Amino acid sequence: MLKDKSPSPDNYANWFTLYHLCQQIGSQKSIHINSGVLGEIIGVSQQTASRRIQDLEKLGWIERKIDGKIQIIRIPKKGADIMLKVYKTLKKILQNILIVGEVSEGIGEGGYYVAIKGYYNQFQEKLGFKPYMGTLNLKLSDLNNTLLRENLDNKRPIVINGFNDEISNRTYGAVDCFDCYISRLDEKGRKIEAAILNIERTHHDKNIIEILAEPYLRDELKLKNGDLLRIDLKTNND
Amino acid sequence: MLKDKSPSPDNYANWFTLYHLCQQIGSQKSIHINSGVLGEIIGVSQQTASRRIQDLEKLGWIERKIDGKIQIIRIPKKGADIMLKVYKTLKKILQNILIVGEVSEGIGEGGYYVAIKGYYNQFQEKLGFKPYMGTLNLKLSDLNNTLLRENLDNKRPIVINGFNDEISNRTYGAVDCFDCYISRLDEKGRKIEAAILNIERTHHDKNIIEILAEPYLRDELKLKNGDLLRIDLKTNND
Repeated sequence: MLKDKSPSPDNYANWFTLYHLCQQIGSQKSIHINSGVLGEIIGVSQQTASRRIQDLEKLGWIERKIDGKIQIIRIPKKGADIMLKVYKTLKKILQNILIVGEVSEGIGEGGYYVAIKGYYNQFQEKLGFKPYMGTLNLKLSDLNNTLLRENLDNKRPIVINGFNDEISNRTYGAVDCFDCYISRLDEKGRKIEAAILNIERTHHDKNIIEILAEPYLRDELKLKNGDLLRIDLKTNND
Repeated sequence: MLKDKSPSPDNYANWFTLYHLCQQIGSQKSIHINSGVLGEIIGVSQQTASRRIQDLEKLGWIERKIDGKIQIIRIPKKGADIMLKVYKTLKKILQNILIVGEVSEGIGEGGYYVAIKGYYNQFQEKLGFKPYMGTLNLKLSDLNNTLLRENLDNKRPIVINGFNDEISNRTYGAVDCFDCYISRLDEKGRKIEAAILNIERTHHDKNIIEILAEPYLRDELKLKNGDLLRIDLKTNND
């Protein structure tokens, strides 16, 4: 039997009906909606939609006021809770999903930035390791890239502040880093502390990320181009 | 008919089966699982679980290798995409959900901090307005509090740096702020730029948040204790 509080098999259709209702409600307190319109939105008959609304009311996932032909629906705590439950589970699923990158040739740009003193001192201090003066480039599939970006959106970056270099009279922008672990797919017990360097550049392939670590990763993990590495973002509890 | 790419009514049960499979897979590449075990996890018979696995394979949401009595299941791009689709929709639903707080009496502590020069100058500079020297306390229901915290987790804070005050020889910690709009429930066209002050304190009711704004909100919005205010977090596009 279900151990978590996700919807039970009897309520899959009800849950998705609530999901579509919530989308319609948006940031309003409630909506007027009739079962014909709701049926069209979710792709079922008016009769089915009407039964779903009754089921949702019985479950306590919606509250309904009927005023003549108009029904006004709002989502009470119990309904919001069941949406939140699935959301949190999905968030966890996506955070856990294995993200893999393929070792690829860099153009040395990352290394150039790492070596700049104004950045280097901050990397050392804020990342907690003395990074190798170069980055490892990993190429991600579209899916892995989407998953990684989604997870980075939920994570607080380590901000490397921008600064003005008086000698060259050049301004260097702020850089976001995200701490992570890197490991070979076939040796996942050996995780190396690393950081993803989030440099925004237009001429760079968007599916390429740059990794910073203390050792020279190509030697340390015996890498050649095309090898697959596993990327585990650190959670706040790591 | 369904305009978005959320699962269609025919696939609600399949989608939830995939959801439970993903939970089982966690951060692995794949799992060995038989339909009996899967059936127990999702609360259906072995026969039903077996049919679901076949459906999922036909949909391209899972890939399956059968090796004697053992089947190995992995999630390909198409399966991850349909999970992501629902996740993103839920995220949007939760971001849009109306969050309401009840005006309540403060203990003046927020105001004390706002007035400290080392903070005040940063508030002014980083929030883009000159805050009133006090905060408005809003009490949230457990649900509203959960929703707000969930959304704040996905939002990047405006960090007010800590500092050392040489005169009192006291150290002040960093404070996170989140920009938002505040409006009366019955006058939602009039939104006032504000910020949520995220001060961590143990003796404070966890469901109370403190709001910073340029005007004295109690006068500006004609508030009395118990009035309800709407809180809209600014999105990155605001």
